[in-house]
Amino acid sequence: MEKPVTVAVDVMGGDAAPQVVLEGLELALAADKDLSVILTGQADYVEPFAAAHVGRAIAVATSEVIGMEEHPAEAVRQKKDSSIVVGCRLVKEERAGGFFSAGSTGACMAAATLYIGRIKGITRPAIASILPSPVCPVILTDIGANADAKPEYLLQFAQMAAVYARHVMKVEQPRIGLLNIGEEETKGSLLAQEAYQLLKEQAPGFCGNAEGTDILQGRFDVVVTDGFTGNVALKTIEGTAAVLFDQLKLVLTASLPRKLAAGVIMPGLKELKKSLSADEVGGAPLLGLKGSCIIGHGSSNARAVANGIAVTAQCIRERLPELISETVAIETGR
Amino acid sequence: MEKPVTVAVDVMGGDAAPQVVLEGLELALAADKDLSVILTGQADYVEPFAAAHVGRAIAVATSEVIGMEEHPAEAVRQKKDSSIVVGCRLVKEERAGGFFSAGSTGACMAAATLYIGRIKGITRPAIASILPSPVCPVILTDIGANADAKPEYLLQFAQMAAVYARHVMKVEQPRIGLLNIGEEETKGSLLAQEAYQLLKEQAPGFCGNAEGTDILQGRFDVVVTDGFTGNVALKTIEGTAAVLFDQLKLVLTASLPRKLAAGVIMPGLKELKKSLSADEVGGAPLLGLKGSCIIGHGSSNARAVANGIAVTAQCIRERLPELISETVAIETGR
Repeated sequence: MEKPVTVAVDVMGGDAAPQVVLEGLELALAADKDLSVILTGQADYVEPFAAAHVGRAIAVATSEVIGMEEHPAEAVRQKKDSSIVVGCRLVKEERAGGFFSAGSTGACMAAATLYIGRIKGITRPAIASILPSPVCPVILTDIGANADAKPEYLLQFAQMAAVYARHVMKVEQPRIGLLNIGEEETKGSLLAQEAYQLLKEQAPGFCGNAEGTDILQGRFDVVVTDGFTGNVALKTIEGTAAVLFDQLKLVLTASLPRKLAAGVIMPGLKELKKSLSADEVGGAPLLGLKGSCIIGHGSSNARAVANGIAVTAQCIRERLPELISETVAIETGR
Repeated sequence: MEKPVTVAVDVMGGDAAPQVVLEGLELALAADKDLSVILTGQADYVEPFAAAHVGRAIAVATSEVIGMEEHPAEAVRQKKDSSIVVGCRLVKEERAGGFFSAGSTGACMAAATLYIGRIKGITRPAIASILPSPVCPVILTDIGANADAKPEYLLQFAQMAAVYARHVMKVEQPRIGLLNIGEEETKGSLLAQEAYQLLKEQAPGFCGNAEGTDILQGRFDVVVTDGFTGNVALKTIEGTAAVLFDQLKLVLTASLPRKLAAGVIMPGLKELKKSLSADEVGGAPLLGLKGSCIIGHGSSNARAVANGIAVTAQCIRERLPELISETVAIETGR
């Protein structure tokens, strides 16, 4: 038997919400008998689900929704009865141990920072992406919360991501790389040069600079950078893969013989696409908050939502925020 | 008949130098009857070539070589008789109109800045990469000369790249994008936000922010950023493509039926790989110098070297430095 946990789930978040989120909730509850959920969202959606899952699900009806295109901080300030804000408040009030949403990452980060709050000693929370590399999964952080960063932030991002890698992804000794433009420690921007020195001194597992070519190669478990560079790198990976798969499709459909040949290799290609899919990794953890928050991709399917909820439950069971707090306090000597 | 031009060529640069460079020189001379070359490099290599191409090729024997791993500025200071330094001095002395090397990009930039010099009014020269996107080629700049940049640098990078796109790549109205982490003009780092305003006011053809997903999509002809982000994005594209092609190979060789099917689609895959190959685009132009310098990829084959020399000749014929000087002076109102 696992430790019982409660996860707050935003039923309104994601391109195919609420349908896909409700399906994901079904899967998550079926897979984990010690999981309870609190649903935030429109009454029509959350109440029937709770009624059908008495003892496992509670409905908290909300009247507002924050769209993907809204300004995160403003939307969070104005829409106090939105599914995202109410979800975060449930964590603050300790009715839930963590929060999952496939909605706006920016709004979730803003609401979580405002309502759940930062861990003491953490200067800036960060967003991490678990890259589904075919070699081994890689945590890239920050991917957008801190467009302008300082060396000390990068040190903490690395320390937090290493805790996540160790306790949630079960990587015994996470190898940390600093995203940079050369191998030598004197390379890069002033930020990268200063961060290198801090990481070398204070981040166990630091293995030096990681270049853009290294991100998906499996040489590092954690790749740390500022939120601007991380966001560009993440989206560049997505864009490159999308262009290549599009071009591959053109190659495979250019003639009848090729179409026939494509039929033979299609199962393998589908597997490859799946191995690169964010659906399998559960979403992007927000690191540095007093509760466990995971943000799913907007295009999440039911399986991705279920994975995201399961990872949130795992973070709660592992006491991720407490572990981050202890580790950062020890490593930075505070 | 084309205008006669002389290109200085570093015979020692590149992983397969000097053989591949000499073969590339043959191809380039055969393709362009109005091209002359000056070869810099070890006497054994450059002198026989010049003797075999009297009237088209001159040998300038040099005693030193700058390796790919050397510190660029130091190596340029110390190795005054290296093929790179001497090549740049030939441009400074106006014996050659431009310089091509497949050697160290950093050393070429350092030598070119020191010996050829910046165009008056250009604060910082930049390195551009012509990305061989399957949709349409894209200029990404800066890709590493300026790890720490200011908004004014980014404006000039964009202006210079637009001149290159217009006159060398024959794009009538280059669409310029600012690499950023969102579409709205208020997004991004302070650098990106300030650069946005400058580009909006002073760069004709500016179309707004380009995200990482947009780089290869063909929506922009020029994507401008600082040298740190640009280098990370460029190497991330390379790394993602390499991982995907490796994985694809595994898929295609996993069983005998798949191997047979792979035979049918292989010509298409090879074409796709070629369309993504840097060999076809001629190399990375250094922008903002008083001469035309193109740096080939270290892994250049003879065809890539020939293309690089041809593009250098084209830049000289188009008077690229003069056009950059005029355009930047007009657009920034200096």
